[in-house]
Amino acid sequence: MPATVFPIGIGDDMAEMRVGGSVLVTTDMLLEGVHFDLAEASLRDVAYKAMAVSLSDCAAMATRPVAAVAAVGLCKGWGEKELKEIHAGITAAGDRFGCKLIGGDITSWQDAGHFVINVTMLSVPGENEPVTRSGAKVGDRICVTGKLGGSIRGRHLTFEPRVYEAMAIAGMVEVHAMMDLSDGLNADIRRICKRSGVGAVIEAEKLPVSEAAMESDDAVGAALNDGEDFELLFTVKAEDCERLLSQWDGDVAITAVGYVTDTGKVEIKTADGEVRELKAGGYDHLR
Amino acid sequence: MPATVFPIGIGDDMAEMRVGGSVLVTTDMLLEGVHFDLAEASLRDVAYKAMAVSLSDCAAMATRPVAAVAAVGLCKGWGEKELKEIHAGITAAGDRFGCKLIGGDITSWQDAGHFVINVTMLSVPGENEPVTRSGAKVGDRICVTGKLGGSIRGRHLTFEPRVYEAMAIAGMVEVHAMMDLSDGLNADIRRICKRSGVGAVIEAEKLPVSEAAMESDDAVGAALNDGEDFELLFTVKAEDCERLLSQWDGDVAITAVGYVTDTGKVEIKTADGEVRELKAGGYDHLR
Repeated sequence: MPATVFPIGIGDDMAEMRVGGSVLVTTDMLLEGVHFDLAEASLRDVAYKAMAVSLSDCAAMATRPVAAVAAVGLCKGWGEKELKEIHAGITAAGDRFGCKLIGGDITSWQDAGHFVINVTMLSVPGENEPVTRSGAKVGDRICVTGKLGGSIRGRHLTFEPRVYEAMAIAGMVEVHAMMDLSDGLNADIRRICKRSGVGAVIEAEKLPVSEAAMESDDAVGAALNDGEDFELLFTVKAEDCERLLSQWDGDVAITAVGYVTDTGKVEIKTADGEVRELKAGGYDHLR
Repeated sequence: MPATVFPIGIGDDMAEMRVGGSVLVTTDMLLEGVHFDLAEASLRDVAYKAMAVSLSDCAAMATRPVAAVAAVGLCKGWGEKELKEIHAGITAAGDRFGCKLIGGDITSWQDAGHFVINVTMLSVPGENEPVTRSGAKVGDRICVTGKLGGSIRGRHLTFEPRVYEAMAIAGMVEVHAMMDLSDGLNADIRRICKRSGVGAVIEAEKLPVSEAAMESDDAVGAALNDGEDFELLFTVKAEDCERLLSQWDGDVAITAVGYVTDTGKVEIKTADGEVRELKAGGYDHLR
């Protein structure tokens, strides 16, 4: 059911939003030195990423982001200038998807080196029910958006959350299971398999390897195991997959990279046609 | 309008909640060494406080807390044991008010000394419209719940958010303006005055000074200026105040501590009946 939403920032102890229907909530905390390095990323980049990570969670369920609150723990001595940069990053990400910043909290450490930003985002269902991780069925095709691997070379700060793609896909076909790729295809497909009680075969030759991953010594390993792709990973019936791929005219590619099995295991099909078990995080035994 | 709410933790990328009507959102970040000291407070205490601060924001608007998400940045080496303590503190606070933890995020620093916990809480209106800070009217009585000052001596970790009191008060009389006392009566009454375009006189002799504040060299100054009381500060018509005070049978006292004026200034009426301006944070000139 499409929801009616009017986010209102009322500048009091809480921000208010009027909703009819479901509200979905996600919260993500990013830490300096863990999720970003301020020697490499600007505060604007980091704030963009903080919002984009949550927007990607909305995309993961094909829901429509509507409002966010952000809390920051600033480094000692930071002030107006830094807050403006942070605000610019937040709105750069949110504005693109109609997601308003409606409240927040500003605190400061007594030292430097531990900037922290937390975004909590509210979304509502689009035309479709929110898509969970638990509906994958044996025989489904496994698809991903975009290209995989090498995100650490820069894309992890600038990625486009697949909010519109997710809603478009869910509007075209019945998506059985979906999530966003945060820990790499190899790790994340296991989550769908576990929740859905199925197995999966990933076809190595079909993986859309990113240019950044190509620079790696093991491009396929990077596409399988690198984190922070923030692309969509989803499963649909084989015939729906065919229809989706033929009708899809979005800017972001959709690629079928494998299929759902009843084995309960995650396997890889190599270039020579051999199917063998893919160990968690163990891309070295591919070679 | 009372809202229909069913918080559902669905263990996917977002937690879901069904709502008809308004949703109010608050987010609060607590930092080690700033808001708490782990030499003095247990992790359970800190997590309790993190929830209680947000619950107090719900009370501030007389809304009903329904669901929360919590994000933590753990110290290096922390694991299951620490997470259990944190969870225990969160549920100890939330359970008392029917506020469910429906999601979260767990991250870890690469060092120690910078534990951070962020709670985002969703609430819905009770029988009354949410109360803002902006409705105080000239002639209103200014009231507070509980006793003021000296919270740092322990109460700031164990305080009871005034969730039920706020809804009860708003059910008995028309509350013009309300907030929770986080920065001390002297600072917080200025917020209501500014938002409402009014002034205020605080009557020093009427202040409900806490026992902890009595231990201070300047008990009245402590009651006026100490932070983290987390009591309610609100204004109501004089006749409503009289009725409220005569009918109130709650465990927590309500005290009328002053009145709203048209001066635009915050003033103090001392024991000798003199009214003079109260400077922001300047309790020394009371003596």
